[in-house]
Amino acid sequence: MIVVRTISQVRQAVADAKADGRAVGLVPTMGALHAGHYSLIEAACERGLFVVVSIFVNPIQFAPTEDLAAYPRTPESDLAGCRDRGVAVVFMPEPSEMYPRPTLTVVDVPQLGQTLCGASRPGHFSGVCTVVTKLLNIVQPDFAFFGAKDFQQATILRRMVEDLNLPTTIVVCPIVREADGLAMSSRNAYLTDAERRQAPALRRSLEMAADLVRRNRPTSGEVVEAILAFLGGESPDGIVDYVEIVDPESLSPVENTSDDILIALAVRFGRARLIDNMRVDAKPGRS
Amino acid sequence: MIVVRTISQVRQAVADAKADGRAVGLVPTMGALHAGHYSLIEAACERGLFVVVSIFVNPIQFAPTEDLAAYPRTPESDLAGCRDRGVAVVFMPEPSEMYPRPTLTVVDVPQLGQTLCGASRPGHFSGVCTVVTKLLNIVQPDFAFFGAKDFQQATILRRMVEDLNLPTTIVVCPIVREADGLAMSSRNAYLTDAERRQAPALRRSLEMAADLVRRNRPTSGEVVEAILAFLGGESPDGIVDYVEIVDPESLSPVENTSDDILIALAVRFGRARLIDNMRVDAKPGRS
Repeated sequence: MIVVRTISQVRQAVADAKADGRAVGLVPTMGALHAGHYSLIEAACERGLFVVVSIFVNPIQFAPTEDLAAYPRTPESDLAGCRDRGVAVVFMPEPSEMYPRPTLTVVDVPQLGQTLCGASRPGHFSGVCTVVTKLLNIVQPDFAFFGAKDFQQATILRRMVEDLNLPTTIVVCPIVREADGLAMSSRNAYLTDAERRQAPALRRSLEMAADLVRRNRPTSGEVVEAILAFLGGESPDGIVDYVEIVDPESLSPVENTSDDILIALAVRFGRARLIDNMRVDAKPGRS
Repeated sequence: MIVVRTISQVRQAVADAKADGRAVGLVPTMGALHAGHYSLIEAACERGLFVVVSIFVNPIQFAPTEDLAAYPRTPESDLAGCRDRGVAVVFMPEPSEMYPRPTLTVVDVPQLGQTLCGASRPGHFSGVCTVVTKLLNIVQPDFAFFGAKDFQQATILRRMVEDLNLPTTIVVCPIVREADGLAMSSRNAYLTDAERRQAPALRRSLEMAADLVRRNRPTSGEVVEAILAFLGGESPDGIVDYVEIVDPESLSPVENTSDDILIALAVRFGRARLIDNMRVDAKPGRS
């Protein structure tokens, strides 16, 4: 495994691999790698790809009020974890390598990026789209891997790649969870012990809601009310940012839970903002 | 020369050329090819590139009030002109091939795209950036060629390619003019005889202004006044859209004409909106 810091180095490594007939997989990350990230890396390795992992805490996807400076950074264990799993190249650029001057160019999918997490994180998804476009142009991978915890991000990036004819296939891998159901997230490190004990309620509220939907097909409003009541009892220290029932592709709110739906929520515990989601398909067994 | 209509066909042709070790040049056009376009094609051929010309009247860069439906289309002479000059592939997609569904993704350089032509053509440059990103992703050329008549477009696209790390070098070729100085444009076809006789005044006003700048280094305001007075006398049927003195890279207005400057103007004659520009460098002889 090689660790490179410049765009020209990663391009050279990928060009060499392609010249050897290898297909290339990119796993873009912000580091602080956990089992969720490693599941993406393993999925890429299992396909026999030449795997590039990027580790870059992208400043332009953080609002000034957000946790850019505090975002966890664990480069040594990240590199060990990548090496153990057969990664070929880790690309760890400095911000000055990715943004030698401020980007004036913006890539955005406004219709999909202003709801859900975008409503409370203005500019976040344009920052994500812009940096992912840059990474895809730098690495030019055949496949790029993202986790389903960031469902909105994955939906936006899939649409972006399609709209812009980027020559990369987006692969979305299932959410990886702790034993008690909490979705893996680098931001779980922010949780106090008390918050950590309450946080698995997010997942349980989604399971409760999915059961409700499968049994009764209630209105979305009824499902949201049930989740809010559940969280009020089970995670009293969590401040709900949103609970929404949306169409899984358009991300538009839906009222009727008889179609394919996505139940998505965001809850703040202190300085940790946690997200989770669950898809419920119209025909049981399809999802 | 082959003429292809689908993305997969043009990708295959380019992949074959690259496998043969050829470097690829793209000349993106909206058709109605004139000597300006052909100068781009010739510049690409002279570099020994595998030359792809795209001919696509991109609907998303036209406002609803603009001339999308009327835009001149001359496919037969375009193809003959490309064949004569050694073009390898002409890519002529239908709108449904480029936009199988409406693009939700937008690429934009707002800081450079809202002045000059962008002020009177809102959305124009985001439409240009989006389609050029698509074409660059489809063709993946080593070089892409644009004309200096559309100076703002070239400046925006150069910045876009840099910001997004697109693996393509933008080449900007000099303006090609009619014998009487009128810049070549597909929209010159809209001019009546009387308008056509007045239109070369645009270029003459720029030459007059450049002389004035080189001699006296007046304020930008004085230069603009001189151009307006000149056009008022020489092209009385032209309605000035803008006359501006800007920094050639940032496109911001400048007051001091002692630095490198760009003098840019747009004038409407009936339904033809014509643009022209001239660069005047701080040190004579450098430009």
